[in-house]
Amino acid sequence: MFAFQTCNNIINLFPSCNYSINYKSKKSISSIIGHKVAFMENDVLKGLRAVVLQRISPKNEERDHLKEITELLVKKVELIACSMGLDDVSASLVGSAARNTWISGTHDLDIFIMFPENASREELEKNGLTIARKIAEESEFFEERYAEHPYINMRYRGFDVDIVPCFRVQSAACIRSAVDRTPFHNEFVKRNILGLEPDVLLLKQFMKGAGVYGSELRTQGFSGYLTELLVIKYGSFENVIRSACGWQPGTYIDLNAHGTTQHAEPLVVVDPTDPKRNVAAALSLDKFCMFIDSCREFLLSPTLDFFFPGSDTSVTDSELLQRLRSRGTAFIAITFKTPDVVEDVLYPQLYKMELAVVALLEEHEFKVLNKGSWSGQKTVILLELMSATLPALRKHRGPPVWVHKHAETFKAKYVNAENVFAFYIENGTYVAEIPRKYSDACSLLKERLTSCSMGKQVSSSVKSGFELLHNSEIYSIQDMNFKLFLMNWPRI
Amino acid sequence: MFAFQTCNNIINLFPSCNYSINYKSKKSISSIIGHKVAFMENDVLKGLRAVVLQRISPKNEERDHLKEITELLVKKVELIACSMGLDDVSASLVGSAARNTWISGTHDLDIFIMFPENASREELEKNGLTIARKIAEESEFFEERYAEHPYINMRYRGFDVDIVPCFRVQSAACIRSAVDRTPFHNEFVKRNILGLEPDVLLLKQFMKGAGVYGSELRTQGFSGYLTELLVIKYGSFENVIRSACGWQPGTYIDLNAHGTTQHAEPLVVVDPTDPKRNVAAALSLDKFCMFIDSCREFLLSPTLDFFFPGSDTSVTDSELLQRLRSRGTAFIAITFKTPDVVEDVLYPQLYKMELAVVALLEEHEFKVLNKGSWSGQKTVILLELMSATLPALRKHRGPPVWVHKHAETFKAKYVNAENVFAFYIENGTYVAEIPRKYSDACSLLKERLTSCSMGKQVSSSVKSGFELLHNSEIYSIQDMNFKLFLMNWPRI
Repeated sequence: MFAFQTCNNIINLFPSCNYSINYKSKKSISSIIGHKVAFMENDVLKGLRAVVLQRISPKNEERDHLKEITELLVKKVELIACSMGLDDVSASLVGSAARNTWISGTHDLDIFIMFPENASREELEKNGLTIARKIAEESEFFEERYAEHPYINMRYRGFDVDIVPCFRVQSAACIRSAVDRTPFHNEFVKRNILGLEPDVLLLKQFMKGAGVYGSELRTQGFSGYLTELLVIKYGSFENVIRSACGWQPGTYIDLNAHGTTQHAEPLVVVDPTDPKRNVAAALSLDKFCMFIDSCREFLLSPTLDFFFPGSDTSVTDSELLQRLRSRGTAFIAITFKTPDVVEDVLYPQLYKMELAVVALLEEHEFKVLNKGSWSGQKTVILLELMSATLPALRKHRGPPVWVHKHAETFKAKYVNAENVFAFYIENGTYVAEIPRKYSDACSLLKERLTSCSMGKQVSSSVKSGFELLHNSEIYSIQDMNFKLFLMNWPRI
Repeated sequence: MFAFQTCNNIINLFPSCNYSINYKSKKSISSIIGHKVAFMENDVLKGLRAVVLQRISPKNEERDHLKEITELLVKKVELIACSMGLDDVSASLVGSAARNTWISGTHDLDIFIMFPENASREELEKNGLTIARKIAEESEFFEERYAEHPYINMRYRGFDVDIVPCFRVQSAACIRSAVDRTPFHNEFVKRNILGLEPDVLLLKQFMKGAGVYGSELRTQGFSGYLTELLVIKYGSFENVIRSACGWQPGTYIDLNAHGTTQHAEPLVVVDPTDPKRNVAAALSLDKFCMFIDSCREFLLSPTLDFFFPGSDTSVTDSELLQRLRSRGTAFIAITFKTPDVVEDVLYPQLYKMELAVVALLEEHEFKVLNKGSWSGQKTVILLELMSATLPALRKHRGPPVWVHKHAETFKAKYVNAENVFAFYIENGTYVAEIPRKYSDACSLLKERLTSCSMGKQVSSSVKSGFELLHNSEIYSIQDMNFKLFLMNWPRI
C-alpha cells in the first residue's frame, strides 16, 4: 500500500497529490495552505469526525459476523465447484466489504466466482449459475438477475448477497465482461487504502447526506469506488472536501498518470486499472455541483447535519397544499402503474419521458418551470407550469407582404379559413390569428402523451393506462414518500 | 403638362415610366404586360371607374361655388394687404382645390399669403396674422394655430379655410419655412397632372377605402401630394395599382432623377421640387404593406367595396363581448382624459406610450399579443395579453456553482432570504425561486404606469388620473367609435 512508501515513490505514483504527501506534517501544511487547515484540524472537526465514525464504523462483532458469513460462502462456492470437477474455479469477496470501507448496517456481500480466462462464456454462465443456485437453496429469498451475464441476488442470513460469475483475466486491459474489472478495483483499493478506511466511511456518509452518493442511474452520483479513489488521491476526508470546493467541470484526476482518452463528463477520474475508463462517468453535472456546494457549506460551519440530515416530516397535508398553492403555478401529475423493472432500467426511462413531455408541452407554448419523477407503487411524472391554459388563439406569422408568391399563398390559406380569429399586417408581415390546437395542457397530454418517446417498459405501462391529476388532485396520491417528494419540490 | 408631350421628352423626364408612355396604345400594352392589362381594360373596370367617379367628382355647381369663394378670399387678402401698404404681398390658392384633385364634399381651402423673400420673419408673422384676422372677422368660427409659424384656420361660408403666410422664394431649394415649399408642389402638379385628375381622385378614394390615406402622424399613410406624384409617375390609377403589387421596401421613385440623399423609409418618392426630400417619409411600413395588399386584392376582384367599404355596425354589444371573450386572452384598457392637443401632437405621444407600456409589461414577463390606441372624449390604450396573471414566483438563475466567488455571493444573498420559495442547483447553476414583484398586470400598471415615457401632454393627463379596466369592464366605455375600434380589433 503505497501511501506509506517513501516520498519519492509517492511523488512518482501520484504526481499531483500534494495534500496526501504533506498531510503528516502539521508544520508544512500550515505553511502551505494557511488558516483553513488550522481550522480543519480544530477541536470541532476532530470531535465531529469521532462522533460520525462512532455511528458509522462497524463494531468488532459486526465485522466478525460478516467475516464468518463471507468465509462460509467462499468455502461453499469452492466446494461446490470442486464437486463439479471445476478445480480451477475460485471464489472471492470483492466490494466495500472486502476493503473495510463499508458502513455499519449495510450488509451487502459481493462474492465473485472466478473462472479461468480460457473458459467459454457458455461454461461460465451455465456453471456459474449452477453453483449460485445451489447456494441459493439455503437462502431466505433469491432471484436471478441479468447484467452483462446472469447472476444471483439472495437474502442469506440477513445479508444481501450477489453471487456473480466472472473471468479471472491477467490484467484489467484483458477483461471479457464489465464485472471482470471488479477484482482489479478490489486489489488496487486494498493496496492503497490502508489507514484511510475511516476517511472513506466519512466521505460516503457525507455524500449520502448531500444526496450525491450512488452511481446508479437514478441518482447519477458518486460510486463507492470513486469515493475510495478520491480519498487515496487527496489523502483524507477533509482534504477531499477542501479540494472539491475549487472543482470545475473538466477537473481531471489520474492517480497513475496513464489516461489515454478524452472525456466530456464534468469530473474525470481515470480508472487506475484501465486508462480508458472514467470512474466518474455516471456523475451528472448537478450532482457534481451539489457536492461542491455541500463541501463549501460544510467548511463554513461543520455540523453533524451534513452527515445525518433530518427530514421535516411534521408538515401537515394542508400546510403542504398551502405551500404548493402559494407558488401560483399549475401542477400536472401523470400517473401510471410502475413497470416491473429494476431502478437502473426504470429511471433512465422516466428521465427520458420527462424530457419528451416537456418538449411536447413547450412545442405547444406551455412553459414548464419544473419537472420531476417519483416512483412507488404508482409512478408519477410531476410537471409545474407557468399556466395550464393558454389563449384560444395564437398568432401565426407569415412572410413579409412584399415576398409576393409566398405572401399570396399564406394569405390564400388563412384569410377566409374557418375559425380564423383575425388576419392582418403587422411589422410588414401577414399575421393570421388561428385557433390554438391545445389551449389546455391536460387535453394536450391526454391526446398526445402516448406518442412521446419514453423507453420500452414505461411506454408500455403508459399505453396501458394513465391518469392526469391537476393541482390539488395530486394530493389524492396517498404515499408518505410521495409526500416527502412534494415537500422537497422542486429540489432534485 | 408633359404627359402629352412627345415620347422623347417624357422618357427624359420619367426615365422608368413605361406604363404611362405605352398606356395610350392598346396593342403595345397587351404585348408588354399581357393578360392583366386586357383584364384592367375590360368592362368591369371601366364601369367601376365610371361609378366611382360619378360619386366622388365634384359637380360643376360645387366647382363654381369653390371658385367663387376662392376668388373672394384671394381678392380680400390682396385688398387688405394693399390697404396696409403691402403692395408686394399676393394671395394664392394651393392644395388639391387648386389642382382639381379634390373629392366632392371635401371643402378645404388653403390660401397662402405670399410675402417677398426679403421680408423679415417678424413682418411676415405680424402682417400675415393681421390680414388673416381681418378676414376671420367675417368667418363663422376661427382659431389661431401654430406650425412653424402661426396661421389661422376658419369656417368660412361652409369651407374649412387655412390662411397661411409664407415667403415667395425663388426656388424650393431656398425655402425659409416648410410651408414655402407648398407653392412649388402646386406648380409642379398643375404642370403635370392635366388629364389625370380623375385618376388622382380614384387613387385617393381607393386609399381611403384601404385605410392608408393621410400623412398625418395618426395615420402614417399617403399624402395627397404623394398620390398625385404616383399618378404622374405611372400614368393612371390602374397602373399605380398594378405597379404597387410588386413594390418592396426600398422602392425608389425619382421623377426628375435628381435625388441626392439616402432614405431608410420603405417607399422613397423624391420630391420633384427638392432633391433631398422623401415625399413618402411619413408612410409607415404597415401602411405601405396594406396598400400593396389592397392593390393585389383589387386586381383579383375589382369591386366598389374597395372604394367604399361598409362597416359592419350591426354587431350587438353581447356579440362583441362574446367575440372578444372567445379569444381567451386578457384585455386591459388604460383610460384617461384626452389631452387638449391636435391629433398630430396626440398620436405620436400615444404610440410612444404604447411602446413604453408594452416594454414595462414584458420586462415583468407579461406577454402582450396586441396593442392599440383610441381617442374620443376619453383616450384608451388597449392591451391584449396572453394572461394578466403570472405565478407568485419566478426562477432567478445565478452563476454556475464552480464560479466560486460569484456563486457564493449569489447564494449568500438568496439562500435564506425571506420569501424565497426554493434554492437549488439546476444545470450546474444556482436557482433562487424568488417572489415575483408583480404577478398581476393591473397592479404593475397601477404602480408603475406614470414612470413610463409618454410625451408631455399625455404624461400630464395620465398623471392627473387614469383608470384601468379589465376584460368585460372595457364595455363600460360607451362610445360608438370605440365599439367600432373593438369590432376591428386587433387590426390597425
